[in-house]
Amino acid sequence: MTKITPVLMAGGSGTRLWPVSRKSFPKQFAPLVGDRTLFQASALRLAGPDFADPVVMTNADFRFIVAEQLDQAGIQPGAIVIEPSGRNTAPAILVAALMVASKDPEGLLLVAPSDHVIPDAAAFARAVRQGVEPAAEGRIVTFGITPDRPETGYGYLELAGQGDGPQPLARFVEKPDTATAAQMLAQGNFLWNAGIFVFKAGVMIDAFRAHAPEYLSPVLAALDEAKDDIGFLRLAKGPWDSLPDQSVDYAVMEKADNLTVVRFSERWSDLGGWDAVWREALLEAPSDNGVVTDAHSTAIDCHDVLLRSDSEDLEVVGIGLTDVMVVATADAVLVADKSRAQDVRHAVSALKAKGRKQATAFPRDHRPWGWFETLALADRFQVKRIVVKPGAALSLQSHVHRSEHWIVVSGTAKVTVDDKVTLVTENQSIYVPLGAVHRMENPGKVPMVLIEVQTGSYLGEDDIIRYEDVYARSSAD
Amino acid sequence: MTKITPVLMAGGSGTRLWPVSRKSFPKQFAPLVGDRTLFQASALRLAGPDFADPVVMTNADFRFIVAEQLDQAGIQPGAIVIEPSGRNTAPAILVAALMVASKDPEGLLLVAPSDHVIPDAAAFARAVRQGVEPAAEGRIVTFGITPDRPETGYGYLELAGQGDGPQPLARFVEKPDTATAAQMLAQGNFLWNAGIFVFKAGVMIDAFRAHAPEYLSPVLAALDEAKDDIGFLRLAKGPWDSLPDQSVDYAVMEKADNLTVVRFSERWSDLGGWDAVWREALLEAPSDNGVVTDAHSTAIDCHDVLLRSDSEDLEVVGIGLTDVMVVATADAVLVADKSRAQDVRHAVSALKAKGRKQATAFPRDHRPWGWFETLALADRFQVKRIVVKPGAALSLQSHVHRSEHWIVVSGTAKVTVDDKVTLVTENQSIYVPLGAVHRMENPGKVPMVLIEVQTGSYLGEDDIIRYEDVYARSSAD
Repeated sequence: MTKITPVLMAGGSGTRLWPVSRKSFPKQFAPLVGDRTLFQASALRLAGPDFADPVVMTNADFRFIVAEQLDQAGIQPGAIVIEPSGRNTAPAILVAALMVASKDPEGLLLVAPSDHVIPDAAAFARAVRQGVEPAAEGRIVTFGITPDRPETGYGYLELAGQGDGPQPLARFVEKPDTATAAQMLAQGNFLWNAGIFVFKAGVMIDAFRAHAPEYLSPVLAALDEAKDDIGFLRLAKGPWDSLPDQSVDYAVMEKADNLTVVRFSERWSDLGGWDAVWREALLEAPSDNGVVTDAHSTAIDCHDVLLRSDSEDLEVVGIGLTDVMVVATADAVLVADKSRAQDVRHAVSALKAKGRKQATAFPRDHRPWGWFETLALADRFQVKRIVVKPGAALSLQSHVHRSEHWIVVSGTAKVTVDDKVTLVTENQSIYVPLGAVHRMENPGKVPMVLIEVQTGSYLGEDDIIRYEDVYARSSAD
Repeated sequence: MTKITPVLMAGGSGTRLWPVSRKSFPKQFAPLVGDRTLFQASALRLAGPDFADPVVMTNADFRFIVAEQLDQAGIQPGAIVIEPSGRNTAPAILVAALMVASKDPEGLLLVAPSDHVIPDAAAFARAVRQGVEPAAEGRIVTFGITPDRPETGYGYLELAGQGDGPQPLARFVEKPDTATAAQMLAQGNFLWNAGIFVFKAGVMIDAFRAHAPEYLSPVLAALDEAKDDIGFLRLAKGPWDSLPDQSVDYAVMEKADNLTVVRFSERWSDLGGWDAVWREALLEAPSDNGVVTDAHSTAIDCHDVLLRSDSEDLEVVGIGLTDVMVVATADAVLVADKSRAQDVRHAVSALKAKGRKQATAFPRDHRPWGWFETLALADRFQVKRIVVKPGAALSLQSHVHRSEHWIVVSGTAKVTVDDKVTLVTENQSIYVPLGAVHRMENPGKVPMVLIEVQTGSYLGEDDIIRYEDVYARSSAD
């Protein structure tokens, strides 16, 4: 059997898990349940002898996070594909199918979201194996989750028959109302649509040709004109942006007549809200009174609560609460009734209206060379903690409005200031005057940690002139 | 009429308003309602032509906060008296009476807690004036608040008659149960005991002599042997520590037969919990749905909630909450059902048991020369923001385990390192090697702000050897 190419969809960003998930750092990249991030867990679930190196579909903002998280998980990507704009799943899946088909039209793909929880990886592997035979025979295989409650937040798959093995799909069912959901739960032949598919590359291309032919030439053009950008495959913007913004379900699957459903009856969650995170955490570690806490949160006389602190500097204490969810990060605290999990997006809108950065930006800013965070920001100064990965380098740059003092507190930095190159090690400092052309590198084998104190009249990230950048970034990037 | 000497009790610390109130920075020093701190508001209420400069009873930990807050409010203290240990109100009041009596036994004192809210200062001044005549005639005047609810958290004063003017006290009533409280509310001649007294110095000394004679000689000794400590009056520890720990009510008032009650019918609160803070805030700025928020908190579909963020870097959002109180500071978040306001002390105990600094210490550490806060603390480095008041100086000191990099970001510092004295101004830095004897001063007219980056194997505050200190502090202080 040829290996299956996993295709991980990692370009989306939602607001329902704010403040941990933000536009600049969405939920798939956060460790919401367990120690690994959802994206890492998804990639690891699709690693092993049956699978080729994964193709990751994402966007420019997340490319370095994707690369770093795969690296941390010890996974070598087949490709990290950058979509120039969000166009939902249809064109992304066609891109992946075309990439695999260019080598082998018979090649199998497994497309999956990267932000779902499937704790039993072995059971999932068994389900995938059940799907391989029908897929090899030219079917598009989709996975349906056996429902355990009359959920109104998901689409459903109606099976043509009642058995446990792979079966033809009768039809897709849109998100139902409560009564319909209850009826479908009772009937037993309706499964949740998990958005996971296995198919041959050529079969998917044929399906687009039959049901959504308008996709083919723009997607082919976007792929033909794609540019390699230091290891990322950047699709061509012109043809891509002309594509409709549609899900593969809507564009292709609902019109195709060759769908087979494989049933998956183990735990699955799309973590569509903090209530789902609470539920999954309780399944991982049951507690009598439904209390979920972590290292930096404490519950006193609470029932059915989620108390979560994602900052080791912030202690959360709940007293006498029932059905309340508290989620704290270094810069924001959400407190919501558990029945209101779907309204967390209103918090994001409210903060946007107030002009608060917490609506979209995360305090820790990930860059290709590492990350930084602001420790203090005042009128004329800013203090940052900067962590540079071994072997990494910031761009050669200068600033018009600020000077910088750098104090190395861990590791060793190689610092260029105008014509001079200096090695600066723990407990040493160096000064970068306003206007000086400078660069910071980590030539060592351990992360380099540096405290930067900026002073000046304007301290925005956009006061930067880039002269050289190993990551091929523009000033705005 | 001779001026009344206000005596402000500012040595207490409670846990019911955690996390804003902590052992190291209790509620009287926090701006809980309005822009001024409770202590400042109390001092200002007792300022003006009728009053002498206030005597403040406090302890060593709070002495610099008291001095700074009086200075900010433009109030010159008559004395700031340091109690060597907490001995409740009885000996503190005797100290104040003896101090005033040493100049004039006929002198009047007004003793008041410094952590209560009395918004109508003019009405309070009228009540005080009502008490002056009976006090001048040798009565001990106590103020009773007309109750507006069957409160079980306060002691009560039973009036001998029913009128509105000053009346003899029939008896003190301990904190009642709910039924008794309701009965007393209905009866109309029971008032809340606010712990505010007006009396002649000599009358109070006589009352102690009659009802609690054991206090006299230790208190006299503590006062006789008191030391002036750069403007603070530090009572002698030996005799003071031998005193019983009793309230003046228990030791004297309940036994005295010369008490007169003055009724006060305007708003008053001892802010005995976050529910009281919520209630007072609503009285200041009524809202239809009982929602109290501030600049950095947002309520969505909430009813009868308090959402409070004391950190400008922390946004709090509540969704769909009823009867919930959320109080966030830079390092801790309390979320409690409104009915559980009196259980907030359990949060403090729980964090103490976990060994968390948030149980007692405040992130911003007030010192006589200004304040500092930790911006980042890691294994081998710490970053602090240090603010030094104009004209102030830190002690001449050295450290055994750490080096320090100082970057001035506002104002000018005069820095001594071993034999060398340097002026360091905005955007300049200086290095203090491990073991060097050093001092930081602010010779300027504006606050000096400095970022300190410490590196070393041990970063505790107790790694300090003090050689000279204008504030006469020991290493442990």
